[in-house]
Amino acid sequence: MKRYEHYAQEIADLIKTGTLQAGDRLPSVRQACANRGISPSTVFEAYYLLEAQGRIEARPRSGYYVRAQPAPRQAEPTTAKPASHSTAVAISDLVFEVLASTRNPSVVPLGSAFPSPALFPLDKLARCLTPAMRARDPGELVEDLTQGNLQLRHQIGLRYGHEGTVVGADEITITNGAMEALNLCLQVLTQPGDVVAVESPAFYGALQALERLQLRAVEVATHPRDGVDLDSLAEVLARHPVKACWFMPQFQNPLGSLMPDATKAAMVDLLARHGVPLIEDDVYGELHFGPGRVRPAKAYDRSGLVLHCASFSKCLAPGYRVGWTAAGRFAPSVQRLKLMTTLSTAIPSQWALARYLQGGGYDRHLRQLRQTLAAQQAVALEAIARYFPTGTRVTRPEGGYFLWVELPQPFDALQLHRLALAQRISIAPGHVFSADRRFGHCLRINYGLPDAARLQDALRTLGQLAHDLLPPGAATG
Amino acid sequence: MKRYEHYAQEIADLIKTGTLQAGDRLPSVRQACANRGISPSTVFEAYYLLEAQGRIEARPRSGYYVRAQPAPRQAEPTTAKPASHSTAVAISDLVFEVLASTRNPSVVPLGSAFPSPALFPLDKLARCLTPAMRARDPGELVEDLTQGNLQLRHQIGLRYGHEGTVVGADEITITNGAMEALNLCLQVLTQPGDVVAVESPAFYGALQALERLQLRAVEVATHPRDGVDLDSLAEVLARHPVKACWFMPQFQNPLGSLMPDATKAAMVDLLARHGVPLIEDDVYGELHFGPGRVRPAKAYDRSGLVLHCASFSKCLAPGYRVGWTAAGRFAPSVQRLKLMTTLSTAIPSQWALARYLQGGGYDRHLRQLRQTLAAQQAVALEAIARYFPTGTRVTRPEGGYFLWVELPQPFDALQLHRLALAQRISIAPGHVFSADRRFGHCLRINYGLPDAARLQDALRTLGQLAHDLLPPGAATG
Repeated sequence: MKRYEHYAQEIADLIKTGTLQAGDRLPSVRQACANRGISPSTVFEAYYLLEAQGRIEARPRSGYYVRAQPAPRQAEPTTAKPASHSTAVAISDLVFEVLASTRNPSVVPLGSAFPSPALFPLDKLARCLTPAMRARDPGELVEDLTQGNLQLRHQIGLRYGHEGTVVGADEITITNGAMEALNLCLQVLTQPGDVVAVESPAFYGALQALERLQLRAVEVATHPRDGVDLDSLAEVLARHPVKACWFMPQFQNPLGSLMPDATKAAMVDLLARHGVPLIEDDVYGELHFGPGRVRPAKAYDRSGLVLHCASFSKCLAPGYRVGWTAAGRFAPSVQRLKLMTTLSTAIPSQWALARYLQGGGYDRHLRQLRQTLAAQQAVALEAIARYFPTGTRVTRPEGGYFLWVELPQPFDALQLHRLALAQRISIAPGHVFSADRRFGHCLRINYGLPDAARLQDALRTLGQLAHDLLPPGAATG
Repeated sequence: MKRYEHYAQEIADLIKTGTLQAGDRLPSVRQACANRGISPSTVFEAYYLLEAQGRIEARPRSGYYVRAQPAPRQAEPTTAKPASHSTAVAISDLVFEVLASTRNPSVVPLGSAFPSPALFPLDKLARCLTPAMRARDPGELVEDLTQGNLQLRHQIGLRYGHEGTVVGADEITITNGAMEALNLCLQVLTQPGDVVAVESPAFYGALQALERLQLRAVEVATHPRDGVDLDSLAEVLARHPVKACWFMPQFQNPLGSLMPDATKAAMVDLLARHGVPLIEDDVYGELHFGPGRVRPAKAYDRSGLVLHCASFSKCLAPGYRVGWTAAGRFAPSVQRLKLMTTLSTAIPSQWALARYLQGGGYDRHLRQLRQTLAAQQAVALEAIARYFPTGTRVTRPEGGYFLWVELPQPFDALQLHRLALAQRISIAPGHVFSADRRFGHCLRINYGLPDAARLQDALRTLGQLAHDLLPPGAATG
């Protein structure tokens, strides 16, 4: 642990134990340096970290203050025990209904899969487009087809390198968002009827892809904080002819779980022993509230079996449709399939992003985005604690922009979805996160909105509706 | 026929009969008006049309002159008799080898599927990107997901309207180029093992798509000038459980054939009687050398069974990856599949194109592009007539940028491909245009290069190599 992390931890402990309370002012940087014999930069970094974690807040020209902490801290959801058999998937109709509901701009999009576009440097990116296109020779349009622009792949390789993962530009194929990358990888690895292991609950996009390709899903128990349970995974691998896994070790959708590094290493080893490829969906990896980016499972891959998929859509450039996969030993097959299906990713998007990344500023943007998301998470947790029924459980992820909320049973989140929509609020009901709809009493909440009051109001309304839906006599908090 | 078309036809007849010869100067506009009692604009339009057809050329500050006509006019290729059974497809390896060879910028890309990027208004398009993105609200990013930007769909609908085809913006889904559109349509219509009718020869991208989806191809005899032969099609429909057709009625790849309007209408009727959907690949429709755009088969569709696919990649904006499909009664299914596989087409490309189209200038660009292509076709035909072996047959398409060249048998175009590559010239050997490689003595030549001398030199070299490959004793012209 670095010096500033130590200092931040000390303050966090003071907050946790109540020594420092909401609204208390922290020592000024000058005072802290004098008191503790540490450098100003150590103090700044510690305060920045605490701010990103949502524990303190800066008030202009005044200093740092302890934020109102969500209280009481609620229990985290339970780990579901999935069925041990594999299942054909058929959830698409419901998913489309839910997604359609988040499009209307007058609806508070708590059911959306995206953070608000207002959180991104869209103007800066826009200013890269025309110069990026005018600076290059038209002939390069042809060279960049299919695998994608080399400078952009190089920039992406550099970002892998920052966290110690070695990925060459040659291994990377630029795709139309991560969605295409994931679908290409799945198609390269499977034939209709094959079994694919997914988390429980799982990202509905994975379930839809399985449905489309006529694959069977076997769900693996997934802890709301630590991700895929390795014992369950080992059992699944022993019992089923698993052709591939599709997991999100970083800030899983919908749980927000972050698999510890040691578990990632063990998982990659376990899969390598079985010769089973891992499609690693890592679209939220850059949204870690702590310092730096977390290491993906790809970092532990020695056998080329991890197909790492990510994109800029959720952390920098929504709508630009630039994702990629570093597909290990499957990279050539992925590239061929891409050539046959969509040929290439849009060049203006690629060249503009390469220019933006070369120009710097991405990390500054990410710091700001993470800080906003951490602060909005605190707002959402507080509102849920205050307004939702007693017995509600909720995750507290260290990154991303989703909360997974488990209501006391019996509870039908689909009913809540429909009632909420009448009040112009969307949610993602738990039904869409499993092939067997086992999460019908859960919902996913997107807190990636810039407006804290709007978020709070919507959650208050949701909480009231949830109370109304509970059976008479149930605890209502 | 309009007045200027009449006048153009008269001059064309004078050229054909030898009354006007290469190098002869045409009457000035003033003279023509005085002689014939027609308006200057009629003369201008007639001369423009003849220029676009490659019959006359403008010399700056001097006037219009009759161009050197390709002589002797060569026979057109024969119509191939395809096998009557359906075939599993496996051509991908060869296609990848050929495509990879066209990437190297030092190679003359006669084997490429694209016209030279130098023929497009790339700078004008680039200038649309930044303002288009800055003019809109970030919230619109979300609204434009999946189906695509409404203004762009509206503009596309207007272009359909110009030639009398009614397509509403609602029916259109914007895709990552036509390649995605075609693949989505094919996936929506078929299951593995199904039979799909294709032309003979067929676009290799169609064959690859069939291969990927484990479909069976049945080839329909296709005339090098008039396209799919309706008697053969009727026979195929009677004999095989055809689930869909994938045809290119306008400037077929590789033949360049243009199906006459009456045949299109009859084909659409025939298919409707059998309830068989038509995937209409119309990526070259804008590249007609005559006036205006030709009508697609979609124009004759009354039952929603024509899935019309097109793009801006070959006529305006290479690399922007903006195509679309107007998928008739299958539009909702296509949209859902798009959502599941690539989610959305890049927004910067869409908004920039919408802005460009609204601003005007597209038709001016198209006129210029068609004129260049018509002129380059004349250069290529002349060079082939001069340098290729006696007995060579070649198409003479009324649009697009491909020639289909049939060498006297026995001849192996794959050998020519490899020899040519050693001389830094690529071609597309006939092998890749059929599931059963029946076109091994043919090749496709792309004349969409801006540099006539480079095109001519490359064809001279190719002609010499072709002579060398003919068996001893064969006629060598």
